[in-house]
Amino acid sequence: MGQGPTITTIAQRAGVSIASVSRVLNGLPTRQETERKVLAAAEELGYVRNAVARSLKSRRTHQVAFAMADVGNPAYLAMLREIQPVLKAAGYRLVLHSTDAVVADEIEVLHSLGERYVDGLIMVPLRVTEAHLAMLASARAPVVIIGSVPEGTPVDNVRADSRTGVRLALDHLHALGRRRIGLVNGPLDTVPGAARGAAYREALGALGLPYDEELVEIGDFYRAEGGRAVATLLDRVPDLDALMCANDLIALGALDVLRAAGRRVPRDVAVVGMDDTDLAAASWPSLSSVSLGSAERGRAAAELLLDRLRHGEREPRLVTVPPHLVVRASTGRAGAEEPRGDAP
Amino acid sequence: MGQGPTITTIAQRAGVSIASVSRVLNGLPTRQETERKVLAAAEELGYVRNAVARSLKSRRTHQVAFAMADVGNPAYLAMLREIQPVLKAAGYRLVLHSTDAVVADEIEVLHSLGERYVDGLIMVPLRVTEAHLAMLASARAPVVIIGSVPEGTPVDNVRADSRTGVRLALDHLHALGRRRIGLVNGPLDTVPGAARGAAYREALGALGLPYDEELVEIGDFYRAEGGRAVATLLDRVPDLDALMCANDLIALGALDVLRAAGRRVPRDVAVVGMDDTDLAAASWPSLSSVSLGSAERGRAAAELLLDRLRHGEREPRLVTVPPHLVVRASTGRAGAEEPRGDAP
Repeated sequence: MGQGPTITTIAQRAGVSIASVSRVLNGLPTRQETERKVLAAAEELGYVRNAVARSLKSRRTHQVAFAMADVGNPAYLAMLREIQPVLKAAGYRLVLHSTDAVVADEIEVLHSLGERYVDGLIMVPLRVTEAHLAMLASARAPVVIIGSVPEGTPVDNVRADSRTGVRLALDHLHALGRRRIGLVNGPLDTVPGAARGAAYREALGALGLPYDEELVEIGDFYRAEGGRAVATLLDRVPDLDALMCANDLIALGALDVLRAAGRRVPRDVAVVGMDDTDLAAASWPSLSSVSLGSAERGRAAAELLLDRLRHGEREPRLVTVPPHLVVRASTGRAGAEEPRGDAP
Repeated sequence: MGQGPTITTIAQRAGVSIASVSRVLNGLPTRQETERKVLAAAEELGYVRNAVARSLKSRRTHQVAFAMADVGNPAYLAMLREIQPVLKAAGYRLVLHSTDAVVADEIEVLHSLGERYVDGLIMVPLRVTEAHLAMLASARAPVVIIGSVPEGTPVDNVRADSRTGVRLALDHLHALGRRRIGLVNGPLDTVPGAARGAAYREALGALGLPYDEELVEIGDFYRAEGGRAVATLLDRVPDLDALMCANDLIALGALDVLRAAGRRVPRDVAVVGMDDTDLAAASWPSLSSVSLGSAERGRAAAELLLDRLRHGEREPRLVTVPPHLVVRASTGRAGAEEPRGDAP
């Protein structure tokens, strides 16, 4: 790519000292005539259009990073779809980090803010460790965390409310007359697993239904594992009439297993997923699902970061995005069936 | 974020001239003692860890851009999922550009390579205009194009082969005994629409089947429009026994309409989609689909770019990724049905 213009070649072209070029490019006071010469030379040499020079001058990179665990996860993609245009409209490029669900990678992303390659960071940590908190307290650029952080953490924060989300789903199933409502959850040592398990128990209580641990089965947040957990649950509790699934992939696994077992959805068993991904509308029957507002959380995070970049220091803000239930065929009222497709 | 170290403060700390600092940071020959002093001062001031400074020094940004039309499109996401880890493993950050299907945005991305904020670019243009070719001929950084470019364009190029893909699908449907095979296509003035239309006609010829324009319906590349086109086609040709759909969203629309019309899939009508997105496996019946190798194309593009960044000038390369057919339930052999689910 050849040798680009440098502070030295600009000084030669402008007929001024290297120190003068440095002063101008760093925005320090300079004689007007000197400044004019330097900027003219820099422009002739293409230096003004150079992001590196602009960055040296303004300490701004016009870049923002988004860090999440897995670029293939639909919930993160829903965030990305909103973050990207908001930042683009404000003149920022988006740098994407996928941390592969490795905490050390997240810490490295926070650490690398010291390199000043971005003006700010939006991060969705898997869980918030002591190392995270230490890095956040000394972050070299503004950070917005999507997820829960302890009170007093000096960053803007955007949260979902899965507790209310589970409550919405169970209220809906209860209103449909379902009373034997199973929970198929992911591991309890994950933040969402623990939160959804507790929310299920609480929501049952609010509805006056007993908590029965027989009705709870733990698998993992994937389709095949979710399906296996549902099969186990069906064997143990043949009379269950509804399933609350901790995400949409588990719910797709539930549909597979119920179909194979000859249980009709929703007539025999109503099914609700969580996250309201694109897969929910594509499945058949289409899947009722609790939206935790991934898109809205992404947009809120981008807007908080832009506000911080524009206005500098201020008190950290917390935005909680309310959930909503999207009702589709998997909990539709029974008895009004469409003609059936077949499958081999 | 305060005033960071500058070339001036480094010169003060090192006790050398600003010109000397500039020479060292630009990698020009300098007395060893001067270089040592400058690098020590720069490190003490945190300047060495600054990506901007590193970039000024090495003319490398350790960033690569990926530009595509729409961050929500599953085919681009499949590419992104492969591109990201390949670049990450090689120490590059990924900058994401979504051009919103606007040619001017693509040209702007190519133009902005002059700002040297990335070391290279992977782009999926919607179509390649004269303006693209002019920018590509004078690009300030290596570019890999995913899509077709005219012969002689001085960039590395990765292509799909939808012609062979359509052929694979029609061979499969023919082998299943289907002879009235409809095509539901997107607009013919798009590159994929034109290519898939021509490939359908050619594949029929190779199978000894007549081309019947009654069997072709044009809609758009979305589910609802695809479904409407299928409904029109079914009205006109009630005896069709298979549908080749120009993408998976059209095929999902076809499943909706066939189900509503009481036509069983695949017994009455077999359905094949294209692109093999995540939606194909999530639908029910699951959807047979032609994979055009989005993931493989993304990986090939990332590897071509890394090779170019490592080895500099060489002849442009062309990689064509072969398609493959993923057979699922929507073309499975009839007569071996699973128990049915129901839907309201």
